Amino acid sequence: MADYREMWKKLNINLEKHDQLCEVLPELYGSVYLQQEDRPEGMNYFNYVVSEVHGARIQELEEHKKNGGKVIGTFCVFVPDEVILATGALGVGLCAGSQFWIEDGEKVLPKNLCPLIKAFTGAKIGATCPYFQSCDMLVGETTCDGKKKAWELLNEYTPVHVMDLPQMKREKDYTMWKDEIRIFIDKMEQLTGNKVTVENLKEAIKLANKKRRALKRLYDLRKHKPSPISGLDCLLISQIAFYDDVNRFVDNVNKLCDELEERIKKGQAKEKKRLMITGTPMALPNWKIHSIIENLGAEIVVEETCTGTRYFENEVCEDGETLDDLIDNLARRYLNINCACFTPNSGRIDDILRYAKEYDVDGVIDYNLSFCHTYAVEDKSIRDMLKDKNIPVMHIETDYSTEDSGQIKTRVEAFLEMI
Amino acid sequence: MADYREMWKKLNINLEKHDQLCEVLPELYGSVYLQQEDRPEGMNYFNYVVSEVHGARIQELEEHKKNGGKVIGTFCVFVPDEVILATGALGVGLCAGSQFWIEDGEKVLPKNLCPLIKAFTGAKIGATCPYFQSCDMLVGETTCDGKKKAWELLNEYTPVHVMDLPQMKREKDYTMWKDEIRIFIDKMEQLTGNKVTVENLKEAIKLANKKRRALKRLYDLRKHKPSPISGLDCLLISQIAFYDDVNRFVDNVNKLCDELEERIKKGQAKEKKRLMITGTPMALPNWKIHSIIENLGAEIVVEETCTGTRYFENEVCEDGETLDDLIDNLARRYLNINCACFTPNSGRIDDILRYAKEYDVDGVIDYNLSFCHTYAVEDKSIRDMLKDKNIPVMHIETDYSTEDSGQIKTRVEAFLEMI
Repeated sequence: MADYREMWKKLNINLEKHDQLCEVLPELYGSVYLQQEDRPEGMNYFNYVVSEVHGARIQELEEHKKNGGKVIGTFCVFVPDEVILATGALGVGLCAGSQFWIEDGEKVLPKNLCPLIKAFTGAKIGATCPYFQSCDMLVGETTCDGKKKAWELLNEYTPVHVMDLPQMKREKDYTMWKDEIRIFIDKMEQLTGNKVTVENLKEAIKLANKKRRALKRLYDLRKHKPSPISGLDCLLISQIAFYDDVNRFVDNVNKLCDELEERIKKGQAKEKKRLMITGTPMALPNWKIHSIIENLGAEIVVEETCTGTRYFENEVCEDGETLDDLIDNLARRYLNINCACFTPNSGRIDDILRYAKEYDVDGVIDYNLSFCHTYAVEDKSIRDMLKDKNIPVMHIETDYSTEDSGQIKTRVEAFLEMI
Repeated sequence: MADYREMWKKLNINLEKHDQLCEVLPELYGSVYLQQEDRPEGMNYFNYVVSEVHGARIQELEEHKKNGGKVIGTFCVFVPDEVILATGALGVGLCAGSQFWIEDGEKVLPKNLCPLIKAFTGAKIGATCPYFQSCDMLVGETTCDGKKKAWELLNEYTPVHVMDLPQMKREKDYTMWKDEIRIFIDKMEQLTGNKVTVENLKEAIKLANKKRRALKRLYDLRKHKPSPISGLDCLLISQIAFYDDVNRFVDNVNKLCDELEERIKKGQAKEKKRLMITGTPMALPNWKIHSIIENLGAEIVVEETCTGTRYFENEVCEDGETLDDLIDNLARRYLNINCACFTPNSGRIDDILRYAKEYDVDGVIDYNLSFCHTYAVEDKSIRDMLKDKNIPVMHIETDYSTEDSGQIKTRVEAFLEMI
C-alpha cells in the first residue's frame, strides 16, 4: 500500500487520530467480509476499493482538483448527481457509518441524535475523513430535522449548499423541486465555472442511469433462490457506489454480474431463509445488521433503503430537447423516491409489498437508526400492513455501537426460528 | 360546576379515563398556581377558565357547531388563525402538555419522541380530550419530523389538513408559503361553505392583531423591575390564548394589565433574579420549569417560545385592497417567526439578544423538550452566542414526567447562585 501521509497532511487530516481509524477498519473488514465462504471472484475489486478507501480514491480526487476540477460532498439520495457530473465535478457520498466518529460528533451535537448525523459531523470536526477534507462544497438537504440543523454546524468548516426538499408530492411540489434543482445548477456553475448544457446534462443522466442499471442488474440476480451473492457483499457494493469512479464501478459490477449468472447456471449452495431490510440507510462501514443476520445462516436479498433500492430504482428519462425538459425529468425521478420524510408516504408501503413478492422473502426486518423520527413513526403502518399480509416482520432500532449486538442476535435468532 | 357528562358522552369521550384526568388537573393547579402569594385580582378570570377547561369552553364550541359553525384544531403558531376566523370557524390550539396522555401516545408512537407529540396523539387515540373530540378538522404543518409523521396517525381519526411550511426564508419561500395559505383558504371554504373575502379576512386580521397587542402589552409590563406578575401566571395566559374566545380573552388581559399598571405605580415587592426562557413550547398544563424556578425565588420575565413571544410578536399588516395583498401580509408575518425548524435561523439569536436587553435578564434558560432535534441542535449556537455576550445560560432538556424535577431544581439553584 502506498504511503499517503503527505497527502493526508496537506488535507489537514488529524494524522494521529486518523491512524487509529486506519487500524480499526481492516480488522473489522477482515472479520466481517473476508471470512465469508465461497465469495465471487468479482468481489476482489471491491476488497481493493475498501483497502484503498482513504488512499487511492482520495488521490484521484486530489488529482482531479489539481486539474481544476471540484469535489462535492453529498449526504442523501435526493441530491441529483447528474448536476454535479454535468459541471465536470466529482461527487462523493459522505454519510458516515462508523462508531469511531460518534465521540467527536457528540462534542457539538446532542447525544440523542441519529448516529449517522453524529458520525458525519464528527468526521468533519475531528478532521479524520479525507473525503470531507477534499470537498470544495457540501450539499445538504432538508430531509430530516437533525441533518437540516447539522448543516449549520458544518457550514463553519466547509461551504454548505442546502436544497429544500418539499415534504409532499403534489404537482406544486414538483415545480418547487425543479426550482431547487435550478438553484443547485446555478450554484454548481458558479463554483466550477462550467455551464450546464443540454448536451452535458444528458450525458450525465446517461452515466448515472448506467450506474442505476448495473445495480438493478445485481439486485435482480439476488432474486434467484438461493441468491448467488451475500447481502453483505451487495451492501458493500451499494456503499461503494456513492463515491467510486462511475465508469470503473459500473464495469466491475457488470463483471461481477456475469460471474453471478455463471454461478446460477451451475447451481450451488443450499437455500437459506430470505430476508428484506427496510428502513434507514447503512453508510460505510456500517455492516452490523447484515453481519449478525448472515452469520445466523439467513440471507438478506433486498434492502428497501437509501443504500439499496431507493438509490437505483427508476431511471431518469433521457428524452428532452431543452434544459427545462431535462430538469423536469430529474425532478420527477428524484421526487419519486419514497423516503419517510414525505407525508404521506404510502408509496413506500407499495414498494415493500412489491419487493416482498419479487424477491420472495420469508420475512422483513424494519431497521431504524436510533432517533430517526420519520422512519420510527412510519414503523407502525409498515408493521400493520405486513402483518395484514401475513408477512413476518421485526423491528430493530439500533446505533453503531456493538453493545446491543448480543441482544439483537438473540432476537433475530428467535425471529428466524419463527418464520 | 355544571355537569358535562352528557356532553362528553356525545363527544365519545372515554369517560372513565377522562375522570382520572379531571381529578389530576385541579390538584396540580392548586399546588402550582393558587399557592402563589399576592396574585393580581385579574387572574381570577383565568382561574375560572382553567376550572372550566373541559366544560364551559367545550359547551361554547358545541353551541357554535349546533349553529352550523366548524371547529378547527391546530398545533402550531404557523397556522394562520385569521383564515379560520374569516370563515366563521373557531380555532383551538391542541398541543398537549400533560404526562397523562403519554401512555396512550406511546401505544402508537416510539418512546423516544417529543412528549408534546406523544401527548396530543395520546389525547386523541385515548379519547380523553374534548377539544380533539369537538374538532371537525385538524390542521398540521411540517415544522418537525415527529409532528409531520404523527398527522398520518391522527388522520385515521379526524381529517387532517397539512400545511407544508418551507424550511428556509428566501423570497421564493414566501411565494410558496402564500400558496400554502391559499390552499388552506380553499380547504376552509369547502369545509365551512363560507367564502373568504377582503372584508372578513381584514376583520379577522384586526381581531388576531388585537389579541397580539393585548399579549404584547402584558409582556411589556413584565419589563418592570420587579415584574408586576409572575412568569407562571403569564405562561398560563399565553396557554389560554390558544383556545379561549378572542374578544373575551382580550378584554380580560387588558383588565389585568390595567391592574398591573396600578401595581407598578404603587411600587411593591422585592427584586428577584430575572430569567428568560428560550426554546420549545410549553403546552397546557406544562408548568414544570416555571414552577421549579419561581419556587426558588427567581422570576421568569420573558419566554422566547411558541407559548411566548413567537405567538404574538409582529402584527399582520392590516393594509391591502385585494385578497392577494392580505394573503401576502399573512405570509410575511407568519414566515417571519424564528422557529428552529428553519435553516438557518439566525433571527432567533437576534431576538434572544434583544429580549435579554429589553427585559433586562440576569440569565437565560435554554429549555428543550426531549428529542426535539431542531432546538437541541440549535442549542450550541445559542449558548455560544450568549457566552460570547457574557449572559449566563443553562440548558435544560426534559419531558413531562416529574422524575427529574429534583435534579433540575438542584441545577437551577446552582445556576441562580452563580448569576
